[in-house]
Formats: sequence, structure tokens, C-alpha cells
Amino acid sequence: MAETNSQRIRLGLVGIGKIARDQHLPALAADTRFELAATASRNAQLDNVPGYPDVAAMIAGHDLDAVSLCTPPDGRYEQAVTAIDAGLHVMLEKPPATTLTEIAALADRARAKGVVLFTTWHSREAAGVEPAKAWLQGKQIQAVRITWREDIRRWHPGQEWILAAGGFGVFDPGINALSIATKILPDPLLLLSGWMEVPEGRGSPLAAELKMRSGNAKVDVVFDFLQTGPQTWDIEIDTDAGTLRLGMGGSILQLPGDDEQKAPDREYPRLYARFAELVAAGESDVDIRPLQIVADAFMMAERRTTARFEF
Amino acid sequence: MAETNSQRIRLGLVGIGKIARDQHLPALAADTRFELAATASRNAQLDNVPGYPDVAAMIAGHDLDAVSLCTPPDGRYEQAVTAIDAGLHVMLEKPPATTLTEIAALADRARAKGVVLFTTWHSREAAGVEPAKAWLQGKQIQAVRITWREDIRRWHPGQEWILAAGGFGVFDPGINALSIATKILPDPLLLLSGWMEVPEGRGSPLAAELKMRSGNAKVDVVFDFLQTGPQTWDIEIDTDAGTLRLGMGGSILQLPGDDEQKAPDREYPRLYARFAELVAAGESDVDIRPLQIVADAFMMAERRTTARFEF
Repeated sequence: MAETNSQRIRLGLVGIGKIARDQHLPALAADTRFELAATASRNAQLDNVPGYPDVAAMIAGHDLDAVSLCTPPDGRYEQAVTAIDAGLHVMLEKPPATTLTEIAALADRARAKGVVLFTTWHSREAAGVEPAKAWLQGKQIQAVRITWREDIRRWHPGQEWILAAGGFGVFDPGINALSIATKILPDPLLLLSGWMEVPEGRGSPLAAELKMRSGNAKVDVVFDFLQTGPQTWDIEIDTDAGTLRLGMGGSILQLPGDDEQKAPDREYPRLYARFAELVAAGESDVDIRPLQIVADAFMMAERRTTARFEF
Repeated sequence: MAETNSQRIRLGLVGIGKIARDQHLPALAADTRFELAATASRNAQLDNVPGYPDVAAMIAGHDLDAVSLCTPPDGRYEQAVTAIDAGLHVMLEKPPATTLTEIAALADRARAKGVVLFTTWHSREAAGVEPAKAWLQGKQIQAVRITWREDIRRWHPGQEWILAAGGFGVFDPGINALSIATKILPDPLLLLSGWMEVPEGRGSPLAAELKMRSGNAKVDVVFDFLQTGPQTWDIEIDTDAGTLRLGMGGSILQLPGDDEQKAPDREYPRLYARFAELVAAGESDVDIRPLQIVADAFMMAERRTTARFEF
């Protein structure tokens, strides 16, 4: 059972892939509120940290307060159930699960068990996002343009699963944009129409456009997975006080008449700081809105078949 | 503003189509807790009831406590917003809206305004559903088979919209099965895999199969929109005490070793009775689980293109 009080949070890290090594481990090493107590991974292990082959073995072998899951979304539901049922707090990489029903079920289960569930959306912690939200307060939002164009071959080389049914396709990066938009816009993002392009023989789209609205503002979304050359992860918001621009996935903020503001990447340190706060307060943070918009798009958007695509 | 107390609930009915005439009007006429005070419809009107062209005009022209929306789902969101903002309680036909984000937004808005929102799922009120749920209590559920086979040409003649993107296709009737299953099964319905068949040139499926699980029970779902001859709306549930069968959309219940139990259709009288209770208690009932499973399927199921279909 979780007994945190003034103690450090004994954390078990599940999944030791690229995102764990690049982001989770440095963030944990720098945060004195956490003790990296154990890891679970089928094929990897860290020096000086007890390693187990899976979540159940890790929980059985080691006293923990919480787990952080950075395995791929497929399978994460079962791992989270195992942890919750053992009375541990759970932090989930994005997207929190493969279906909306899984997230709702995890939230119910965590509530019943009295543990904290935290569905993280790392892009929301990019340096420009909080200041952008603060600046928008009280402004009249007139139009929003979200443009997420990146090269699948550069960022997801050989990841066939991302274009399979259930892999989300271009919505895998696109959900980062939606996580920022749902955080900074005061009104819900309602889908009006859209299309997606799925290559022949694949199950998920390489491109999509969504027409949405938020309050009275038109929201135009362009997702493109075939962008070579300069990559674009931009959100522009026209207001009665001029246009705000969030560039590079939220890390650059440009307010009307100002220079660009840049700050070092602190997404994962901020996520773990928030998790520590949630654990201390005994509060969950389960926000399904970004995935809900993806689901809305898959239900409602027109689907076109395009030419075959090979990595 | 809604002032109900011991008074009858002054209800405005929005949309005077087939479902309104067949179901809503008789149910309202038989329920003394309601007074059908006004209607809103672009093209129809009732004798002896004040008629208005739309919700806003109806609300402006008449003192009401609540509205019941039985217009098609597309457009219902705006009508519900108008009613909620005017301080009226709202009852929604199924599916409650076209997207999950719309339902979540309506629920938030109703909560902020202090009015009741009721997302109805009429099949849940079929005669056999409550007794089935009661019988399943404490039984071990081993397997579930959901078979919904009907003839689109017979039940939806010429309704091209149902096969357009956003029309849900065979999930339009199928969601009735999912509304029953989510009511009577104790554990959430988790999608494992699935496929859907979409005719060339159309946006929504004519057939689908879903492999799900609920607790440890396998749940197999077959939806078919091309069933001529006998029509099937069956749910079979294998338990440690034998197999329960719900037939004809929930109206026939067969328990192991028993004769079939049939009762007259009281779906809509029960829905309005429930709405009256919710209004009296000041409580909302917003259940998105059936539509959430549809969304899960559209995100995750493999999509196959089949031969052209004409009505």
C-alpha cells in the first residue's frame, strides 16, 4: 500500500525504451521527491536498480508507492490494473490507453481503490503553454490554426504499428497539438467535419484535416505525416489583441509585438513534479479530452484511400 | 427557470417526426407528471398544442421547465445548449449527440447551470433488461454473444445519411445492443479487436464484428445491416448457472430452464418516468458508455471496403 507522507515516493518504472532513457530517467534523477526503486522490462535493465521482467514481478519483489508506465499504449491497461489493484499510484505516458473505455475503467478502478491516476500529456508542459494560456485569459478568441507537419520516416522509422488499425497514424503526433489546444482554449473543441487519408493496405491515416469550433472561434487543424524539410508544430490564435503563436510544439511563444520567448525543455520534470503534488494531495488527474477528439474524428471524418506507403 | 416542485413539468417537445408520434407523445399523454406545453418543429405542429419553428422561439414564447429533444443527432447539441442556457432541464434521444466531446460539453454546461441532463437509451428500458440484470447479480459470467442483424432497407428506407461519414451505419441500431450490454454486465466492455465493412463510396459500415471482453468473459459482437428474412436482436450470456437469452432487443427474456418471458413495450413511459424522477431529485444521468464503445471501434477496428450498396 502507498504510504508516502514525508517519505520519498518509491517509484517503479515500467518500460525502458527510448522515452524512458531520454526523458523519464533524467527527470526522476533530478527530483528528490522520488526514489527510483525498481524497473520492469522484458529486455532491459538499469545498473544499480533492481530489475524485474514485468509489473507483477516488480510489485511482488519490491515495496513501492507508485509506478510510471512508459511502455507502448497497447498492453498498458493490464499493467495499470495490476498496479492499481496492488494499491499503487499510477502515472501514464500519452496516450493513456488504446481506447476511451480503458481509460474510464482505470479511472473508476483508481477511485474505488483510493489511489492516484495521472494521465500525462507531455506537450502541455512545454515552456510556452502556461504563459499562452495565461495571456489568452479575458481575450476574445477569433480563430485558431493548428498545423502539425512532420516526417514519419524521420521520427518513426520502421514503426509499422503506427499505421496499423489502432495505431492512430498522424494522430499519434497530432494528439500532442490537441492536448495543448484543450489546455489553453477556454471552450470545448467541437468537431464539425473532417477528412483523413489512409494509404492503401494500411489502417491509420498519414494526413487529416479537421474543421472544429471552440466557442465562436473557427479552429482549423492540419495534420501531415509526410513533411520533409522544415518540420512544423505550430498553433496560431487570432484574438482581439492580436495573434499569439506557439511554435515547435509549444516550446516557443510569440505574443503580438513581442520577440519570441524560448525556454529549455522541462516537460518531464514538470510532469513528475505534478505527479508528486497529486500523490501528496491524494488527487487524480484524468483528462481524456485529447483522445476524445481523436475518437470524434475517427467516427465522423470522411476517409479517403491514397497511394501505398512504405517506410 | 425551472420551478417544478409539486407542479406538473411543463415540457417542450422538439422534433415531431416518427419517433415523437409513435413513442414520445403517447408516453407523455399517459404521464400525469408532465404537461406537453409546446412543440418546436420546422414543418410540423400538433392540434391544441402551441407550435414554434425552433427551440429558441419556443422558449421565448412559452414558460417551460424542460425540453425533450427527438430531432436527429446532428444539430441536437445547439438545441440542447439553447435550452440549458435558458435554465431548462433536457432529455436527449439516443445517441445523445454526434460526438463524445459534445456530450461532455453538455454535461459540463448543465452542471454549471444547475439543470438536469438525461441521456436516454431506450433499449435499456425494454421489459427483459432489468430482470436480466437482476438475475446476473452474483453469477459468474463466462461468455457473451451479441447478434444484431436487421435489414437496413426495411428499417431505414432511403436514409442515405446513415451510411455517410458520421452516420454510424450499422452502429446506429448496434448502439442499442451496447446500451443494454453496458447496463447489465458488471464489468466494462473492453475492445480487443474488430473489423467493419464499408461499401465503396460510403462513409459508414454495413457490417461489423467486435471482439471484446468484460471481466474474464469473452464478448463477441456481430452487427449486420443486410439481414433479410427473420431479424435478430439477441444477447446471450453464458453463466455458471446456465445461459440467459435476451431476444427481440431486450423485450423477451429466457432464463435457463424457464419459458420465455414477454411483456408489453413500455420503453418510453419508463424513460419519462425516470426523467420526472431525475427532475424531482435535481440529478443528471449522463452515460456515454455506449457511444464510447462505438468510438473505440471506429478508432481501432480494421476497415474493409466492400461492394457498392444502393437502397
